[in-house]
Order: sequence, then C-alpha cells, then structure tokens
Amino acid sequence: MLEINEVFNAARVLNDVARHTALIHAPKLSSDCDIWLKTENLQLTGSFKLRGAYYKISQLSDEEKSRGVIACSAGNHAQGVALGATHNGIKSLICLPAGAPISKVEATKGYGAEVCLVPGVYDDAYAKAIELRDKHGYTFVHPFDDPKVIAGQGTIGLEILEDMPDIDAVIVPIGGGGLISGVAFTIKTLRPEIKVYGVQSSGAPSMAASLSEGHIAHLDRVSTIADGIAVKEPGVNTFEMCNKYVDEVVTVSDDEIAAAILALIEKHKLVAEGAGAVAVAAAMFNKLPIHGQKVACLVSGGNIDVSTLSRVITRGLAKSGRNYTFIIDLPDKPGQLSGVCNVVAQQGGNVISVAHERINTSTEINGCIIRMDLETRNPEHIEQVRQALRQAGYNVLN
Amino acid sequence: MLEINEVFNAARVLNDVARHTALIHAPKLSSDCDIWLKTENLQLTGSFKLRGAYYKISQLSDEEKSRGVIACSAGNHAQGVALGATHNGIKSLICLPAGAPISKVEATKGYGAEVCLVPGVYDDAYAKAIELRDKHGYTFVHPFDDPKVIAGQGTIGLEILEDMPDIDAVIVPIGGGGLISGVAFTIKTLRPEIKVYGVQSSGAPSMAASLSEGHIAHLDRVSTIADGIAVKEPGVNTFEMCNKYVDEVVTVSDDEIAAAILALIEKHKLVAEGAGAVAVAAAMFNKLPIHGQKVACLVSGGNIDVSTLSRVITRGLAKSGRNYTFIIDLPDKPGQLSGVCNVVAQQGGNVISVAHERINTSTEINGCIIRMDLETRNPEHIEQVRQALRQAGYNVLN
Repeated sequence: MLEINEVFNAARVLNDVARHTALIHAPKLSSDCDIWLKTENLQLTGSFKLRGAYYKISQLSDEEKSRGVIACSAGNHAQGVALGATHNGIKSLICLPAGAPISKVEATKGYGAEVCLVPGVYDDAYAKAIELRDKHGYTFVHPFDDPKVIAGQGTIGLEILEDMPDIDAVIVPIGGGGLISGVAFTIKTLRPEIKVYGVQSSGAPSMAASLSEGHIAHLDRVSTIADGIAVKEPGVNTFEMCNKYVDEVVTVSDDEIAAAILALIEKHKLVAEGAGAVAVAAAMFNKLPIHGQKVACLVSGGNIDVSTLSRVITRGLAKSGRNYTFIIDLPDKPGQLSGVCNVVAQQGGNVISVAHERINTSTEINGCIIRMDLETRNPEHIEQVRQALRQAGYNVLN
Repeated sequence: MLEINEVFNAARVLNDVARHTALIHAPKLSSDCDIWLKTENLQLTGSFKLRGAYYKISQLSDEEKSRGVIACSAGNHAQGVALGATHNGIKSLICLPAGAPISKVEATKGYGAEVCLVPGVYDDAYAKAIELRDKHGYTFVHPFDDPKVIAGQGTIGLEILEDMPDIDAVIVPIGGGGLISGVAFTIKTLRPEIKVYGVQSSGAPSMAASLSEGHIAHLDRVSTIADGIAVKEPGVNTFEMCNKYVDEVVTVSDDEIAAAILALIEKHKLVAEGAGAVAVAAAMFNKLPIHGQKVACLVSGGNIDVSTLSRVITRGLAKSGRNYTFIIDLPDKPGQLSGVCNVVAQQGGNVISVAHERINTSTEINGCIIRMDLETRNPEHIEQVRQALRQAGYNVLN
C-alpha cells in the first residue's frame, strides 16, 4: 500500500530533474468558476509521465539497474522512461508499434533509449516487451499500475497544495489511472476536504465504467482524439485507489476536447494534446459541481501531432464561423465567377480556395457549380455574405 | 534620461499585477547554443505590453488619471492599456482600425476599455486618437517611445538577471524599439558584459536601417507575418537607446519566423505570434555570434490569429514533408482512381482531399488529372509513394 512518505521521497528525488511547473490563472476559460492550469504540458518530455517513470527507475536496486529497463508505449510514457533511464545512467529499450509517428520515435531515441519497432498495434508491442523482459531480465516499467510510478505522479498534488493552499477542487485526466491515483491519494491524505474529480473521453470510458459497475471493466474498442488516455481497462491498483479517493468521474466528447484545445491556444497560448485538455473541457462545459469554486485543471501533456492540431484548429474555426464553404449554382456563361468574387470582396470575405465545376447532374444542363472556401469573421458575417450574394441574384445552395 | 531606479520602481509597481514569467529551458531548438525562453506570451493579455502600459498609467497624476487615457493600436498595446487602466481604476479609450480582427476588439473590450473603430488603416486610427486627445484632454499612452513605458518593459531584464545570473546573451524582438530599449538599458547598466541582440523581420527592418544609416529611417511599406513588429520608423528615444546599448541587430525572413513558430509549438508546447518568435528564429538559424553560449530568447507575445496559425502549420507541414499534393495524369477510363488509391493506401499515405478533373488542356483528349493531397511521414515517404505510383504505371506529374 502506498504511503504519503513515498510521495515526499519522490518529490525529493525529482527535485533536480522534473520542473515544478507553473500553476497559471485562466480566468477566460469559464465565467462559472475560477480556473487555474497546472501546466504539465511544459514539463520536460512534454508530459507528466517523466515523474513516475523517473522515480520508479531511481528506486531500482543496483542489480536491477545494471540489467536495464524496458517499456512499451506509443507516446508520453516512452519519452518519460527514456529520459528517466538516461538520467539515472542506465539502458532503456522501448517497444513501439511500427506505425507510431516518426516524431515520437525520434524524440524517444533523442532521450537516449534504444527503440524496437514492432509490426502491428500497441498490444503486439506490449507482447514483445514482455517477451524481451523474460528473455533478458530487463525490469518492465508499467505506464500506470505501479505504486512507485503512482507516487511519482503524486508529486503534482504536493506542488498544487504548495502553490495554492486555498484550492477547492482538482480536476485530473484519467487513462489507466496512474496520474489521478497519485494526485488523489496525496491530496485526500493531506487535505481531505479538497475535491478530486476525474475526466475520461466518452470514447474510452474504462475507469468510469469500472467504478459504476463496481469491478474492473474491459472495453473492446476505444476511439478518441485523446489518444494518451485511450486505455481499454484500468489497473488493479489504480481502480482500487480511484474507488477510494476520487469524488466523481465524468466524460467529455471529442468535440468538447477539441474546443478546449482551441481555447487553450487562443486564450492562454498553451498547446495541449487531447488527453491534456479533458480536465479543461470538463470545466468549460459544466460537467462538474464546481460553480464559484477555485479549481486546478491538470493539463497533463502537450504532445499533439501537428497534423492533428491543424485539423482541430480547422474544425474549431468552422464551428466559430471563421471559415465557411459557399456552394453557388450558376448559369454557365462568362463573367459569373467574376461577379461572385466581386460580391465576396465587397463584403470583406477572404477567399481560401475556389472550385468551379461545369458537370453536375443536380444543376441545369448549361449550369455550373462554384464551391468557395472563405475566411469569415463570425456567423453574422457569413450570413451577411450570403444575403449579399442572394441580393445580387445568385442561387446560394449552401 | 531613464535611470535604473525607475526600472526598480516599475518592478515594485508591477509586482502585484504582471506575472514574473518563467524562463524555460529549450534544449531542442538548437544544438549550437543553450537556449532559454522568457515566456512573455504567458503574460496577462498574452504579451509583455501590459508592463509598460500599466507602469505608465500608474505614474500619472490624479488630475491626469481623472481625465482618462487614450491609445491607438491594432493589437497587444490595446490590451495592455485597457487592462492597465482598468486595474488603476481609470477610463480608457482605444482607437482601432475598423478591419482589426474581431478577437482583438473583443479582448480589448473585455479588459474594460471603450473601443472606437476608425474607418481606414492604423494611421487613420492614430490621427483619430490624437484628435480625441486634443479635444477631450485624455493622456495619450505611446506604444513604445516613452521613458515610463520603456522602464516598464525593462523589468523583463531584471527578471532574467534574477532567474539566470550566468546568462551570456539576451535576444529581443524589435518593432518600435520600446521593449529592447528597456531590456538593454537594464542589462547594460547592471551587467555590461552580457550581450544584448535585437531582431527584426526582414519585411520591416526600420531599426536595423536606422542604425546602419546613423539616423532615423522611415520605411514606406512594411510586409511581414510578424504584424506586432511591423513598424515603419523607430522612436526618437528608442533609436538613441538602441544605438547606445544594443550590440547588434539582425533580421529574419517570414519563412524563418514560421519555422520558429512551428518549433515552439512542437517542441515546447508554446504558442507564439510572429513578432514573439523572431528571437528564437535568429538563434535557430544562426544569425548571431552565440555559438556555445547560454542565451535568453524573449518570446514577446502569443496573440496570433488562429487562421494565421493554421496557415503557418500547413506551410510548416509541407516544408517538412508531412503533406504533399500529387498530380497524376491518367487515361479517362473506369478504375483509374481506384488503382491510384490502392497504391497510396499500400504505402501508408493518408488522403486529405482528391480532385479528379476530366477537362484539362494539357492532357490527351481522353485523359484526366488527379490532384491528391496526402498526409505523409517525411520527404522519404513522399518519394516512396511516388516510386510506387510510377512502378504501377502511373504518370506522376508532381
């Protein structure tokens, strides 16, 4: 069983290595409660995972250290273990599924790990890691279900209490449950009146399902943009600790997560990955009883692929009316495109792309279709452009 | 003439208001020098401008305060003045050009300012602000050429010296020159052996031109993605201070700025605007004699429009081979698109969009063109897809 002294010991060990990340005031994210962001996305390796991995590795015996460590991960845990092992002067081998993004493979190598690319998916990489552990005697560093790893993550709870003793509640993302187990154990041991809430993606609600069913539930399939918390079942230790220490677990949708990512970028200049934004999403979309309270949202990591980030931004722009695709049905004669462009220009719309298609079975035989992507200011501006096009006699289909 | 005591006084006044922003280690931005980021993008209002504006306003006489302040800005200065005035309990009126992004207008109002939208460009808004000042007796808060404003910005220099006394050099963006004047004055007064370098956009090099010509130069036209430092001429005070205290001024291109923005997002989870990224760009692209040194790059702000951010990311993705548009010339018969899609899928390319055009004067009369946007892993992956398409008999034009 974890003891609070172990968390204090982890804080001492991590003092030279991990950043004591800033707790940043974020008054613009919600008018309903007073949000503070615990910015573990600015942690070394871009996520909190370094804390647990480093502490676990530091506590190995000399004999274990000499044999090296092995881990399996497609993301943040890989980088945490790699840096933790290298700082401790020992070897690490990380099994990654062969399809993992090049950027994460390169980052893991950059922290000094040897990388083993395993054909297939995460489960195949896991099986390979266990096989190599048994064959070579490496120590396996579990991503979440290990008391030392949990103690390392618990140091985040200490930092929040130190920086803001008058906090009312802490909101924490849940994947396997290692992070929230450490944070909730620490906070409930030292300050039991502070609430600790957990958040999962509605596309991967394994801990939420387990807690409501009263035993560990296994999901056959998970699907969410928050890949860092897309875990099919919680651990034995983490399930028990969440059951005991966490006040409530809620879920948020991918659209809510995307809105939170965009809000963090626009309003607070911070890049969060999907998993890193779920606590903010829960606060923004009023999923929890925190009205009027001072709450710390744990932004657990920022390792989002820029292609994904680009899609999230595009979607967010469309949702907030700053991007719109007009489709206009026109008679196919000279001057039509020019006429449409004039109207759009007069209204201050900024053209991103235009497609002009003559062949379309839905129009008249001598008709054509213009599809025009515009940058717009807001939904009212879109409506204003639409009205101007209609007044000029154009048949706006969309 | 500015005295160092004024900077200390500004630090005392700002203590309750401005954040002492973190100096974050950024070892992954350059292998040539040891970069630390002074994260003023995480300052309240998203930029350093709050410091100078707040300090200036706090030093007004009661009589001046009672009449209120006026400023003209399309961006960060507007928000700094608005928050500075509101915190000091006085009225502010900000003149903005009518085409300013809605997000900035809303943010300025949100900090408590009254906003006056002036038809035309920045110069028109400036003329209007001066007119209103003369008519109503408001105090005009200059964005850079004012000793109190410069003293406020100088507090950043104090924080850098406090957090990292062994720094070798500080790299600072230059627009009108208020920020670098304050920082350079402070650092050269207290620690003259530390180098202070300035960076401008090559599309708006007004201070660089002024220093090399030996007098204030006026640019007729400025054009850069770093809109926050697109200034046509430096101030009288700032020109003199840069001449005296700054070791060297260099310029960076828009492409270099975009690469720096993308690197800050990917490697350090920080959102910088164009002006905020120029110091990092200068270090990344070896513009300065800082080999092997410990340098602080001032990330001055993060107020980038998300549409612009989206374009920067798209461009950065294309440059690093993670996005490619193939153009393929095909005979127009059934099954061709399907065949191309199969090859792309086998090679692990992820289709973003496809355009299939039958009418094209550059192809055979019964030919057609496929234009296919793909997400790719890197330049080698693009080449691999290209080779596979060619081996399958397709005529890849691009």
